[in-house]
Amino acid sequence: MKLVRFTKDTTDFVGAIFDNDRVVNINYLLDEPSLTMMDLIERGLGFIEHIESKLENINKSNDKELVAGLEDIVLKAPLPNPGKVVCVGLNYMDHCREQNVEPPESPLIFSKWPSSIIGPGGNIILPEESKQVDYEAELGVVIGNKGKHIAEENALDHVFGYVIVNDVSARDVQFADGQWIRGKSYDTFAPCGPYLVTADEVKDPHNLAIRCTVNGEVLQDSNTNEMIFNINEVVAYLSKGFTFKTGDLLSTGTPDGVGVFRNPKVFLEDGDEVVIEIEGLGVLKNTCVSERKCWFD
Amino acid sequence: MKLVRFTKDTTDFVGAIFDNDRVVNINYLLDEPSLTMMDLIERGLGFIEHIESKLENINKSNDKELVAGLEDIVLKAPLPNPGKVVCVGLNYMDHCREQNVEPPESPLIFSKWPSSIIGPGGNIILPEESKQVDYEAELGVVIGNKGKHIAEENALDHVFGYVIVNDVSARDVQFADGQWIRGKSYDTFAPCGPYLVTADEVKDPHNLAIRCTVNGEVLQDSNTNEMIFNINEVVAYLSKGFTFKTGDLLSTGTPDGVGVFRNPKVFLEDGDEVVIEIEGLGVLKNTCVSERKCWFD
Repeated sequence: MKLVRFTKDTTDFVGAIFDNDRVVNINYLLDEPSLTMMDLIERGLGFIEHIESKLENINKSNDKELVAGLEDIVLKAPLPNPGKVVCVGLNYMDHCREQNVEPPESPLIFSKWPSSIIGPGGNIILPEESKQVDYEAELGVVIGNKGKHIAEENALDHVFGYVIVNDVSARDVQFADGQWIRGKSYDTFAPCGPYLVTADEVKDPHNLAIRCTVNGEVLQDSNTNEMIFNINEVVAYLSKGFTFKTGDLLSTGTPDGVGVFRNPKVFLEDGDEVVIEIEGLGVLKNTCVSERKCWFD
Repeated sequence: MKLVRFTKDTTDFVGAIFDNDRVVNINYLLDEPSLTMMDLIERGLGFIEHIESKLENINKSNDKELVAGLEDIVLKAPLPNPGKVVCVGLNYMDHCREQNVEPPESPLIFSKWPSSIIGPGGNIILPEESKQVDYEAELGVVIGNKGKHIAEENALDHVFGYVIVNDVSARDVQFADGQWIRGKSYDTFAPCGPYLVTADEVKDPHNLAIRCTVNGEVLQDSNTNEMIFNINEVVAYLSKGFTFKTGDLLSTGTPDGVGVFRNPKVFLEDGDEVVIEIEGLGVLKNTCVSERKCWFD
């Protein structure tokens, strides 16, 4: 199921996509107005099956409360406030090759603060403090069942679903600071979406085409099979130390083609449209706006 | 007001300390069973005044639902799940001197994941992966009113209160990783408490004695007036880039005396009792337990 969060007539809802461009209002379907995306994740994939069977047995065509066209709503970040955002650096072989660095011996772990999350269509604000804002197409993994000391072979049982993440990075700040979190966590630096696709719809997360274009030019074009440490390995490695909690977001690294390692370098500019596509997970589009312009909003 | 979260008869409550060792149940006082600490922070310091005036006008001695002794309850971390934990490294002059490093030119920012938070009295679990677990006594600042581009002179208006934080750190992991977050975020590596002391009770957060003892031996003994970047400066600096949200936790760095820079080095061992005291904020006590022992729990 392709789960979404959306706003209609100033109210927030959770929903599911069907027929490509239509949305079922899950709050209305279940008669639970306060149900959130986090509630759905907590109830788990069995509950998603229950929703699916309910959807099959109703007439979706005539009820305007139940169904909306994508053009009549505003999609929001499917997961607005994960307890932690765990990121893996240098995790694609092609991304190591473009930097002429050896692949790391163990996963290189860093973080973004959740306050940087925005949804599909939201503006990436290019901060005054940076002249080197870069894109990074990434496969995001949403944790379902919490766990610690998770075995590699069981790791995917702890996955509720997948989402596209753009790990936007202010390279000058990131590298000057040494610790990456500030340069990776400016407001709007974690576009996510458009959907949270439940795990049952993703046959093999380790074999998905992943692409990023800026203003229509293809700048990243790879496959998640280039990952050095796969999801199972990363989850097992990290959960030796901490508990993965329900709703945590794990972003699994980016393939080659990021702006800072291109020749000549490419950095995002006011007006640029960044489009990330991952096979089966939809298309995440965001437009860049310089911070200075926002001061007059 | 000294706010606490506590468990009594398996139910969680928020409360306030009075007469040193007694707790008023705020949920019961206000007849709001589902009120959380985050709700109190959102309602702000004006609401805290309202609670105080209510407390003055009731008889606290005879109602056993309303009042408990500290010995009859279990205190929990006052702030269990902040949206982000923002940490400042190398932020005490004496801590720079002990490492023979120049003070940084701008705040050195890193993070801990909130899943590492535990309360007063909780066990610090020494993970199998590390042989170098260290303590760091820190003043934690809890953000009240959210804000971005906060001016230095207004920064304390955005502070709801203060809490003791122990920034427990696996030095071997922290330094081997380069990015500090994993070595700083093992489960139980962020003891907090015992109270969230509201800002009106802390006259000058930049002049508080701060001490850490391990098994009774004083290993850190300084004052928050040794901070290089004070709270106002750090909040202004960071809020140029991101929004501080209600309930965020800012931990402001540790003074000299941490274990890894002592000669000989001191690391935490099974059974060690770590006690941190900050003037006016109470005493935070936690005992270390090796992870191996927990496997038999």
